[in-house]
Amino acid sequence: MTDQMQRIVLASRPDGAPRNDNFRLETVEIPALGDGEVLIKAHYFSLDPYMRGRMDDAKSYAAGIGIDDLMAGGAVGEVIASNAPEFVPGDFALTMTGWATHGIAKPVEMRKLDPALAPITTALGVLGMPGFTGWYGLTELGHPQKGETVVVGAATGPVGSMVGQVARMRGLRVVGIAGGEAKCSMATEVYGFDACIDHRAFEGARDLREALKQHCPDGIDIYFENVGGKVLEAVLPLMNAHGRIPLCGMIAWYNAGNLGANAAMESLTAPRLWQSILVKHLSVNGFIISNHFDRYPEFLREVGPAIAAGQVKHTEDIVEGLENAPAAFRGLLTGKNMGKLLVKVI
Amino acid sequence: MTDQMQRIVLASRPDGAPRNDNFRLETVEIPALGDGEVLIKAHYFSLDPYMRGRMDDAKSYAAGIGIDDLMAGGAVGEVIASNAPEFVPGDFALTMTGWATHGIAKPVEMRKLDPALAPITTALGVLGMPGFTGWYGLTELGHPQKGETVVVGAATGPVGSMVGQVARMRGLRVVGIAGGEAKCSMATEVYGFDACIDHRAFEGARDLREALKQHCPDGIDIYFENVGGKVLEAVLPLMNAHGRIPLCGMIAWYNAGNLGANAAMESLTAPRLWQSILVKHLSVNGFIISNHFDRYPEFLREVGPAIAAGQVKHTEDIVEGLENAPAAFRGLLTGKNMGKLLVKVI
Repeated sequence: MTDQMQRIVLASRPDGAPRNDNFRLETVEIPALGDGEVLIKAHYFSLDPYMRGRMDDAKSYAAGIGIDDLMAGGAVGEVIASNAPEFVPGDFALTMTGWATHGIAKPVEMRKLDPALAPITTALGVLGMPGFTGWYGLTELGHPQKGETVVVGAATGPVGSMVGQVARMRGLRVVGIAGGEAKCSMATEVYGFDACIDHRAFEGARDLREALKQHCPDGIDIYFENVGGKVLEAVLPLMNAHGRIPLCGMIAWYNAGNLGANAAMESLTAPRLWQSILVKHLSVNGFIISNHFDRYPEFLREVGPAIAAGQVKHTEDIVEGLENAPAAFRGLLTGKNMGKLLVKVI
Repeated sequence: MTDQMQRIVLASRPDGAPRNDNFRLETVEIPALGDGEVLIKAHYFSLDPYMRGRMDDAKSYAAGIGIDDLMAGGAVGEVIASNAPEFVPGDFALTMTGWATHGIAKPVEMRKLDPALAPITTALGVLGMPGFTGWYGLTELGHPQKGETVVVGAATGPVGSMVGQVARMRGLRVVGIAGGEAKCSMATEVYGFDACIDHRAFEGARDLREALKQHCPDGIDIYFENVGGKVLEAVLPLMNAHGRIPLCGMIAWYNAGNLGANAAMESLTAPRLWQSILVKHLSVNGFIISNHFDRYPEFLREVGPAIAAGQVKHTEDIVEGLENAPAAFRGLLTGKNMGKLLVKVI
């Protein structure tokens, strides 16, 4: 049995965009297994935008990560030792062992995976937290109606691509927004979006709005919000009365430091944002998917068969080697990845 | 029959706070009654904060009022001539004849009132649009649960006082915010709020927040929003996870001109506002009550008996004389009125 492991901890809090020296790679002893505990060798772990929020001291979804603490997050791996009757060596599991080669978990924190049913990586993406987030936000908070128009930011990410594909299955017009021509092609050609707009082609919100207008001739009924920034500013005036905005992220603002004056938009002030919600009778709902896992079986019932039938596709972007996680994570925050970003632990 | 009438029209658009010269009092001929039309002599008309939005050219709830057009709004009065079978002289009705001594309306735009059931002025306040707004927003969008805490801005206004009283009936802790000691006493002594905070006693949002904290030991579950500005900024960080914000007005910002930099708060930027909604999983719902009149009978069933039983109280602030409407309306926007503001047409 291995008795050493590697992991990445938070070395210091970033001021704006993370730098590599905000992280530190450590080699440590694997702690002795306690009663009821399981030792897992990670095969892949997940990099997700929400992790940026947890690097700050401020209140985010969950408590911030402490200095010198493990960069927490989802992972899939193989059980290599077990003091719990629920797991035996050779089992595969989804766990929260984070940016590390190994981790210790209790069965209550683990979900057993059957590699024969689906590749284990899908538990971190299309069938995992991101895919479920897209499905839940769209269907439960977006109230999609056939013939309506939905706009999705970060269209080719694991959340956005699920939103778009489920919306298409339900008969909506789907317009994506993504960074770069390659992603826009992926959105329309792989994921079947009706259109996708490259936000990098537009300097300001006003020009982006003009482009959106052409692709949303009947206005926007649902804006699935995981971006913020220029995209939000472009979208708001195009929202139809009684529009819905499920809000699960704001990646454009994660690196904005104190979210104060430097993060201000061209013209989007707090009063203007409030006014749009009021005047258009919008419904804006912030959510975090971990509060809604009771709905996961329902998600699987709809999306599982659609994946099997090829109606719902997904893309993985796999980086090899724990030591490359910080650079890959920095790239995620600037949109360098194509699809669900995973680190393969070699 | 009178053949002349007086009315107040919009003379020019205000830049910020309205001035008296944005209005003009006119004496005009009463037009001849067409087929199916009814002539009403107004007894009272309503002054409401939403009218400020309609004085701007920008898109608001409804189309803006045109220059030289009547200041539109709700009124109650007596039918003095009728070419419609539904009404005869002597009938009382709620109409939208606005800031005027007389008006012509069609039965479809009128609701017959029985002065023996309730004073006709209540159709403009506690039993009318403002009261119904408070009830609908609280019960339908606030999802009030016994034991929760609700904070209400403009606590002694006809909307806020309804919110507070219905919330008390349902077993919530009710904390009001109002301008001045007299209003705060009214909130606690007349309307039975658990507490009411005088926002004028605090320079900035931060101090106001400290005061709120003391009166909301378990945080805030519902913020009934009709104010915006400093109050919103004070409330946001105190919202509990899964809090609800029904949003039907933002009077603090109505006079803010373009809602741009001049209207910016101490620290409340658009990204910070968005972040609060995200991190606390808030549900923010803008609404305008005119979309929900199908629920009016339900409102009457709950609130009508409560008024009769003295459980729901109301206060009217009556100004005499059409010519005094502009000054009274300017006072409304700075909180000079105590209770539902009406103009009595002498």
